[in-house]
Amino acid sequence: MIVALSHAATEEQIRTIEKRIAKENLKVVRMPGDDRVVIGIISSIPADTRYDLADSLDRMEGVDHITHVSRPYKLASREFHAHDTVVQVGDCAFGGKAVVVIAGPCSIESEEQMLECANGSKAAGATMLRGGAFKPRSSPYAFQGLAKQGLEIMRDVGKQVGLKTVSEVMSPQDVGLVADHVDMLQIGARSMQNFPLLVEAGNSGHPILLKRGPSATVDEFLLAAEYLLSRSDNDVVLCERGVHPLDRTYTRNTLDLSIVPVLKEISHLPVVVDPSHGTGHAKYVPSMALAAVACGADGLIVEMHPNPSQAMSDAAQALLPDALCKMVEDCRKVAEAVGRSI
Amino acid sequence: MIVALSHAATEEQIRTIEKRIAKENLKVVRMPGDDRVVIGIISSIPADTRYDLADSLDRMEGVDHITHVSRPYKLASREFHAHDTVVQVGDCAFGGKAVVVIAGPCSIESEEQMLECANGSKAAGATMLRGGAFKPRSSPYAFQGLAKQGLEIMRDVGKQVGLKTVSEVMSPQDVGLVADHVDMLQIGARSMQNFPLLVEAGNSGHPILLKRGPSATVDEFLLAAEYLLSRSDNDVVLCERGVHPLDRTYTRNTLDLSIVPVLKEISHLPVVVDPSHGTGHAKYVPSMALAAVACGADGLIVEMHPNPSQAMSDAAQALLPDALCKMVEDCRKVAEAVGRSI
Amino acid sequence: MIVALSHAATEEQIRTIEKRIAKENLKVVRMPGDDRVVIGIISSIPADTRYDLADSLDRMEGVDHITHVSRPYKLASREFHAHDTVVQVGDCAFGGKAVVVIAGPCSIESEEQMLECANGSKAAGATMLRGGAFKPRSSPYAFQGLAKQGLEIMRDVGKQVGLKTVSEVMSPQDVGLVADHVDMLQIGARSMQNFPLLVEAGNSGHPILLKRGPSATVDEFLLAAEYLLSRSDNDVVLCERGVHPLDRTYTRNTLDLSIVPVLKEISHLPVVVDPSHGTGHAKYVPSMALAAVACGADGLIVEMHPNPSQAMSDAAQALLPDALCKMVEDCRKVAEAVGRSI
Amino acid sequence: MIVALSHAATEEQIRTIEKRIAKENLKVVRMPGDDRVVIGIISSIPADTRYDLADSLDRMEGVDHITHVSRPYKLASREFHAHDTVVQVGDCAFGGKAVVVIAGPCSIESEEQMLECANGSKAAGATMLRGGAFKPRSSPYAFQGLAKQGLEIMRDVGKQVGLKTVSEVMSPQDVGLVADHVDMLQIGARSMQNFPLLVEAGNSGHPILLKRGPSATVDEFLLAAEYLLSRSDNDVVLCERGVHPLDRTYTRNTLDLSIVPVLKEISHLPVVVDPSHGTGHAKYVPSMALAAVACGADGLIVEMHPNPSQAMSDAAQALLPDALCKMVEDCRKVAEAVGRSI
Repeated sequence: MIVALSHAATEEQIRTIEKRIAKENLKVVRMPGDDRVVIGIISSIPADTRYDLADSLDRMEGVDHITHVSRPYKLASREFHAHDTVVQVGDCAFGGKAVVVIAGPCSIESEEQMLECANGSKAAGATMLRGGAFKPRSSPYAFQGLAKQGLEIMRDVGKQVGLKTVSEVMSPQDVGLVADHVDMLQIGARSMQNFPLLVEAGNSGHPILLKRGPSATVDEFLLAAEYLLSRSDNDVVLCERGVHPLDRTYTRNTLDLSIVPVLKEISHLPVVVDPSHGTGHAKYVPSMALAAVACGADGLIVEMHPNPSQAMSDAAQALLPDALCKMVEDCRKVAEAVGRSI
Repeated sequence: MIVALSHAATEEQIRTIEKRIAKENLKVVRMPGDDRVVIGIISSIPADTRYDLADSLDRMEGVDHITHVSRPYKLASREFHAHDTVVQVGDCAFGGKAVVVIAGPCSIESEEQMLECANGSKAAGATMLRGGAFKPRSSPYAFQGLAKQGLEIMRDVGKQVGLKTVSEVMSPQDVGLVADHVDMLQIGARSMQNFPLLVEAGNSGHPILLKRGPSATVDEFLLAAEYLLSRSDNDVVLCERGVHPLDRTYTRNTLDLSIVPVLKEISHLPVVVDPSHGTGHAKYVPSMALAAVACGADGLIVEMHPNPSQAMSDAAQALLPDALCKMVEDCRKVAEAVGRSI
Repeated sequence: MIVALSHAATEEQIRTIEKRIAKENLKVVRMPGDDRVVIGIISSIPADTRYDLADSLDRMEGVDHITHVSRPYKLASREFHAHDTVVQVGDCAFGGKAVVVIAGPCSIESEEQMLECANGSKAAGATMLRGGAFKPRSSPYAFQGLAKQGLEIMRDVGKQVGLKTVSEVMSPQDVGLVADHVDMLQIGARSMQNFPLLVEAGNSGHPILLKRGPSATVDEFLLAAEYLLSRSDNDVVLCERGVHPLDRTYTRNTLDLSIVPVLKEISHLPVVVDPSHGTGHAKYVPSMALAAVACGADGLIVEMHPNPSQAMSDAAQALLPDALCKMVEDCRKVAEAVGRSI
Repeated sequence: MIVALSHAATEEQIRTIEKRIAKENLKVVRMPGDDRVVIGIISSIPADTRYDLADSLDRMEGVDHITHVSRPYKLASREFHAHDTVVQVGDCAFGGKAVVVIAGPCSIESEEQMLECANGSKAAGATMLRGGAFKPRSSPYAFQGLAKQGLEIMRDVGKQVGLKTVSEVMSPQDVGLVADHVDMLQIGARSMQNFPLLVEAGNSGHPILLKRGPSATVDEFLLAAEYLLSRSDNDVVLCERGVHPLDRTYTRNTLDLSIVPVLKEISHLPVVVDPSHGTGHAKYVPSMALAAVACGADGLIVEMHPNPSQAMSDAAQALLPDALCKMVEDCRKVAEAVGRSI
């Protein structure tokens, strides 16, 4: 942390500030500049305690502003964990050479629909099945999911077809229930900073797909992962799904693909991309899936539906089974071009 | 909802689209333009079911794009509830002539601290006490709040000093606990789309202060209120607390004050402003409080602390008791200038 | 500038980095931390040269990332110019006790229209007349302004009615022309980083109203002012007019009023607020004007039109003369409540 | 355009509104809904004139809000120009099967530097040389470019090495000068809505690379292209270079790659991607270049420099010649995987 003092800070003020820092057992380096004195605080203590210290210092006489130098996360950081983490969910290895394809409907609607989706997804090359039993819907009037009944359908269909399963959990008290039925828990974008849920999911020991919040910075995203990692040796997969867009005329979100190489550099966790929510329209999904594979994503999570115009949610972004097949084939070629496989 | 067909849509495609709409028992109006046909769907059904329909139509041949005309909320809308709602929490009337002042620390730290805060807040003119027992913290390493013990302190101090109380609830299973201890539940910004929490809080029948999410649109904000209002005749107060900023160099958020007159026009619910989180720095809080009162806010919620540089969270934005007094005095003058009181 | 080295930086890499810095005649302070070494560079040289250095250092082996501590502007900074600058344009003093009101139509349409606007504005209490002769329009098909003819109308009407005038200049080669006809040049939001225009306007010696760009950070805004101030002792007035919004459903921009106290703290320049573009709808303008005055704005610039539904541009945000009168009256009360006048 | 009337609009108000529309010779369709009447206006007139009408209608009694259905651009739209436009600049064909690679330094610094850059770029597979003679710099203290001298260097080096050239023009009066020296004019991101520059560049008849503004919506981007196309049969290439980011901790902008398939669908113009400005750091450029090629970009424009740590601007994002070679090789494989070539 760097404390830039104001132009007019007095020696007495500077000493008071240095004493305040010393109280925290932190090392202080004073750097006298031409315009002002700058105080450096160097420490390896996880950073948010230092955010609280920063807030305190910010209030002291003679301080102009505070700048953070270190990153606030540690367990999620590559600096302290040099090798890529591979998250294994049955046969699916996130972070290995193969790009994992997760496919399935937005909502679990019925056993028939799930069977059709699972078969279509498997035929296309997917190795994991997605589908929501608890649906976060902006409107209270929208379909909210089949809950436990949906989870049971998913468990049965997954076993029957031979696909691993992932489904969203929205409430801390449902973590056990969801974990009992599916192979991987999903923390949705709107829940990325639902801290009680992160704690409970972290405690479960289940592998977790953590989606980035719609306005989350990279540091906030990795701090959410840090919540999970700090509870147990969780297997965490990060998922980019689009951030709040400049405008929603053509896409529902702005898929921020540059986060893939950024996360690959600063973190050891696998990174998956969701081009379905990332764009909001089926017609743009294949292009963004190709781009995701090209820039190093370890997996794709895509929505598909045998009959989108009858789907109970997110019909606009669901691929038809044939389109999914074509997309995976095309992604395979790109994966090979960048030294990966599907 | 308006369905703009593509330039090249055929008569057969148009008929198929019209049939799909008719299946939902909705009225269709066909508008032939010079360039393209546009189909209007006019209905009073709450809108999100229509979002699902929109998604379906979006997938049909001949459709170029869909535009929504009606607003997606109803219970929160002024159109169907012309008079201002006044939310009464004991003596505090949100939405009446008087501007309500809520003050208190970010976190409940101890009985002594809360007593000092409560006395300072009351002396300054506040009629409600704020303070967090469950703290949403970006980092797992930061102070997370005193939980039940904090709520007990708050209940006791509130009674002793004679202030109504408001505190955040983060988890559905804590709604009962928090409601048992404080007069008003707060749904925090990061929980604005925590739907299981909204449902549980809505069911409680307790008055609720609903904060706007950091990247929530106005419609998303009112739909969150709609979740609460659709569960029971909840008393809901809306709270603007700043949206994701262009940059964080000088403020932590961008306080979007224009939402005050917007919400006053389209909704009947009271609107409160949080200039503390809205700016993130104590030095900017009074100016933004004055602005909030000037543009029609029904209340202010501000952070204060007797000793900010020792506070366990959010020290940077807490006002000293004297600064709070001065701020409320100044706000009173502005309130009177716009025909209100404090 | 702070150079955070990577965890694994070698002593040799560190020395090479220090040598690179020393080449620029900058002082280096090495701060050894538990995790990593951090290098501080303290200097008073205007910062962007250092941005170029930062970019260079960013490429060197052993560097993790760079953080800037000092602000990049100097002439616009209050630290080196403690007293408020008062910009005098005839009788209008921006930055004094009185809040300046600038009013007028979006576009200059005809002499009759301008006379009516000028009389209405003056009657309402405005002391400066606004109106565009060169109009920045998103679409090539929209009305582009009367150019020189419009400027002549403005000059004549301003003199006749006794109002100072301000009008936008969009092109470097038009600076002389506009300066010959009006008392103050306006640099529009979309031109805030039109650097050749800033240079030319800066060279003119004319007072300048500089609007913030729709996605400009505070530092970018003050650097644009720095362009003007570095050319001559220009009289520069800063103007907040709204930033790119989260959504455009209800307002065209998000008026960022917290920039008023921020700019008042870090800069000595006067600050004016444009609630018309800031909201985009006449119905929200008075509330935001009141808020602007309450939080310390030195002036308001508002659009008005005698007959908005016939206006050639921006009809949605123009106030009727009566509404303008009422707004100024209300603002006067708020101004007095905060120790100012109108 | 759709005019949603308020719940309480009277028949007389509706008739007045319809008369106002009829005055513009536009067809009106009245759609009576359960809640409210909605009026549809269908027309092929370019849309911004209708924006002015919308603004006028917005002010009339009985109107709740206005929604636009048609797109505001026409010449840039694929609906009225079904085939892909191929922009030919000498040998470089933007929009054909081959992906064009443009490379070169941020700034033209000297003949030696440009020669080295040109040779390195050509060796890597680039067919066009970029380099700035007029540099838009946020700070007045930063290097502003060599102007005419730089253009002469570029012209000579381009000829000598056998590369077509592109360079930015910032001022309307420099359009002729720049067009005399280089093969393609670049309109920079900050100039995307510099309308006098667009008019002048449009009039030049020279091929133009138009960069998207940092907070420009897709419609604003295409309207800027419309400015160019409406002046003459210009050859316009669109360029995505990143939008204003959520935060700048790791990247300088957010590269919005989904705009590639969006633009491909709605426009006939070629689309190029700039991963250098799009990320701001050389280490992320190759990944984003691969992604751009994978999702359908017709070209790449990348910054390179033989000695980045000595570059006069943008050192952080310049690739070394070897890295550029490697990147183009990798992009070639991806191009082939998606049926293109380099």
